[in-house]
Amino acid sequence: MGSRKYGAILIIGNQSAANDIRYATGYSSYEHVCLLDLGTRGCLMSVPDMEVNRARRQCHGRKREIEVVAGSQVSLEGYPPRLSRAARLCLALLKVRRVRGVITIPAYFPVGIADELRSAGLDLSVAAEVYPQRAVKTAEEIAHIARVQKVAVTAMRQARRLLAKAECGRGGILKIGGRTLDSDWLRMEIEKVILENDCLPLEGTIVAAGEDAADPHEAGSGPIKSGEPVVIDIFPRCRRSGYWGDLTRTYVKGPCSPELLKMYADVVAAQRAVLNAVRPKVSFNHLQRIAGEVIRSRKMKVRPRLRHRGRFIHGIGHGVGLDIHEAPVPSMEKSMRLAAGNVITVEPGLYYGGVGGVRVEDTIVVTEQGWRPLCRLGRKLGVD
Amino acid sequence: MGSRKYGAILIIGNQSAANDIRYATGYSSYEHVCLLDLGTRGCLMSVPDMEVNRARRQCHGRKREIEVVAGSQVSLEGYPPRLSRAARLCLALLKVRRVRGVITIPAYFPVGIADELRSAGLDLSVAAEVYPQRAVKTAEEIAHIARVQKVAVTAMRQARRLLAKAECGRGGILKIGGRTLDSDWLRMEIEKVILENDCLPLEGTIVAAGEDAADPHEAGSGPIKSGEPVVIDIFPRCRRSGYWGDLTRTYVKGPCSPELLKMYADVVAAQRAVLNAVRPKVSFNHLQRIAGEVIRSRKMKVRPRLRHRGRFIHGIGHGVGLDIHEAPVPSMEKSMRLAAGNVITVEPGLYYGGVGGVRVEDTIVVTEQGWRPLCRLGRKLGVD
Repeated sequence: MGSRKYGAILIIGNQSAANDIRYATGYSSYEHVCLLDLGTRGCLMSVPDMEVNRARRQCHGRKREIEVVAGSQVSLEGYPPRLSRAARLCLALLKVRRVRGVITIPAYFPVGIADELRSAGLDLSVAAEVYPQRAVKTAEEIAHIARVQKVAVTAMRQARRLLAKAECGRGGILKIGGRTLDSDWLRMEIEKVILENDCLPLEGTIVAAGEDAADPHEAGSGPIKSGEPVVIDIFPRCRRSGYWGDLTRTYVKGPCSPELLKMYADVVAAQRAVLNAVRPKVSFNHLQRIAGEVIRSRKMKVRPRLRHRGRFIHGIGHGVGLDIHEAPVPSMEKSMRLAAGNVITVEPGLYYGGVGGVRVEDTIVVTEQGWRPLCRLGRKLGVD
Repeated sequence: MGSRKYGAILIIGNQSAANDIRYATGYSSYEHVCLLDLGTRGCLMSVPDMEVNRARRQCHGRKREIEVVAGSQVSLEGYPPRLSRAARLCLALLKVRRVRGVITIPAYFPVGIADELRSAGLDLSVAAEVYPQRAVKTAEEIAHIARVQKVAVTAMRQARRLLAKAECGRGGILKIGGRTLDSDWLRMEIEKVILENDCLPLEGTIVAAGEDAADPHEAGSGPIKSGEPVVIDIFPRCRRSGYWGDLTRTYVKGPCSPELLKMYADVVAAQRAVLNAVRPKVSFNHLQRIAGEVIRSRKMKVRPRLRHRGRFIHGIGHGVGLDIHEAPVPSMEKSMRLAAGNVITVEPGLYYGGVGGVRVEDTIVVTEQGWRPLCRLGRKLGVD
C-alpha cells in the first residue's frame, strides 16, 4: 500500500469511490459499501449480505487484514433514527473499532452523509486524495496495465489490418468485399478483440476519420475515405484486475497530403521531445510546455491541441491505473511532479478543421533513469 | 422534465453526477463540468473548452434553454485563491445568473467543494434526489429502454441457440464442434451481439452455471455441464441514449432434476404473482413480500433470495433508466410506491448450494391500468 498519511479513513461506496475501495481492499463493488481504513490496523468493511462471500474472496491475500461484515449483522441500534442507514452504518463501524479523533474522508465523499455525521458530532477532515500512493504503481499493478496495453496493441493491429485490406471505391470511400468500411464497423472489430481478451471497451473506442478526427472527443461515425486521417484511440479495461490501458494511433489509407504528413511529423517530434524529458521530479506542466514549444517551433499554422497547456483540460497526458484518468495529471492548480512508478500517457495531437486530426499516444512507466514503454507498436502513418 | 421541486440546483460533475447531468441536459460527460439548473429559467453549464461543440450538439433541441460555456471563458477573478478552481467556477456561474438564497445540491455532491462553498457564504440545502422525476419515464425514454431490452433479447436468443447446438461430452461437459462450451465463451458471444447492436456490456454479463449459479452476484466461469442451471443476466447500455436494459433467464441443457424443476416453477409463480400486483401506488416493499409469501407457501426448503425482503439488498426488482439500478427500489428506509411511467425489473430468484440458482427477470413499464412488458421472450427452462 506504500506510505500513508491518514490515521482513520472513512469511505462511503458511490461511483466516485469505487476505485479507492478497490485499491484499498481488492473488492470490486461499491454499492452499499462502507469502508473504514485504519492503516496498519487493517480495514473494516460492511457490504450487502449477498456480497459477503465474493468480497472476502477478493480481499483475500492482501498484506493487511480486511475484515468483511454483512450489513445486516452490524447493529444500528441506539443511533438517531433521523440519520440515514448509511450514516448510522458509518457510526457503528467507528464504534466497533473504537475510533476517536479526526476522521479523514475523501473530497468526493457525499455531502449528505458528511452533514449527518457532523451533526452526530464527528470531526471530519477532507483530503483531496485519501490514497495519494495510487499514483506510484507496484510491479504487480504495472504488470496488470502492461497486459491491458498489449490487448490494445492487438486490437490496433486488427484495425490496421482491416485498413490495409480495404480498397478504394467510388468517391474515395473504403470498401472490403464490397461493403463500406465505416467507423462503426472498425470500432466493432476493435472491440471484439478487446472482449476476446478478457477486457471491456467501457467508454467506447474512438475511430474518428476526416472531419470527425478534427475534434479530439468525437467518437466518429460514417464511411472512411482514402487519404483522410483516422484517429483510433483504444482504452480497454481488464475485467478481472480493473486496470486500464490507453493507446492511440493515426492511420491514413492511400495517399497522404503534404500538410497531413507535416502535421504528423510535428506530433511525432513533440512526442519524442516529451519522452526525452520524462524522468522523476519533472513536472507534468513542464512536459506540456515542451510539446507546445516543439509544435510552435515547427511553425505549422494549425490549432494545436496544446493551446490550453497548463490547464487541466485534455493535455499532453495523464496517469493511468484503476481510473483511465488519474494522478499525475497536468493542472493549473498544482504542478504535479513525476515519480518513478507513475504510469502515464504521452499523447500530443493536432487538430485542424478541413484537414483533420492526428494524435499519437503511448502509455509508459516512469523509472529512476527515465521511462520504459509498456508495449511496442510502430507509428507509421500510411497504410498501403 | 416533469415537475420540479427546487429553485436553483447546483451539480459538480463527478462519476456519481454523470446521469443527473445527462438527464438534465442531454450532455453525456461529467469531467470538469459544473451545472447550474434554474428550472424554467434554463440551465447554465460550464464544460472543458474542447467539449463545448459536442456539449452544444447534445444539449440542442431540449425544451429548456441550456447555455453551454467554455470553462476558460468564465472569469474567476475576485474569488479567494484558497478556493479550488471548481468552487470558484460554481461561484462564478451563480454570479452570472444572479442566483441568491438557498441553492439545492444533491446528496452525492462532493463534500470538499460543498465545504468551500459554505465557507464562501453560500446557503446549501442537500436533497436526496435533485431529479426525483427521473423515476417517471417519458414515452421517449421508454422507447430508448425498449430498444435496449430488444438487444438483450437478441443476445439471450443467441445464448440459447448455442446451448441448443451443444452436445454432451465426457463428464456431462457441453461441447460445440469439439470445443468445450464454458461461461467465458457464452458470455463473449452474448457481448458480441450487444456490440453489434450499438450497445455496451458495461458491467459484464453474468453467465453462471452450476455452483456459480448459487451465488447471485457471481459472473461465472468454467465449463457448462448438462443438467445444471445456467443463469444468464444480460444488461446492456445503449451507446447513444445511455439507457440500460436488464433481462435474466435460466436454462438447463439436457435432463432437469425434479428439484430444479420445482425451484424453477416456484420462481415463475413468484414472478407471476408479483406481476399480478403491479400497478400505481403499490409499494415496492409490498411486491417483495408477495414474492416471499409465494415461495414460502410452496414449501420448498431452499435459501430464498428474498430472505432479506424489506432491506435494500438485491430484491424483487429495481428501477431501470440512465442507471441500471435507480428509483424506484425496495428499501428499508422508505417504502417507494410505484407510479405510472416507472420502468422496473421483476426478478425473483432462488439459490441453493448443491443445486444451483434460478432467476427470471423481465423489465416492464408501470401503466395506469397495471403494467406492460418492454419485450417478449419465453421462459422455458429446458433446452433440447
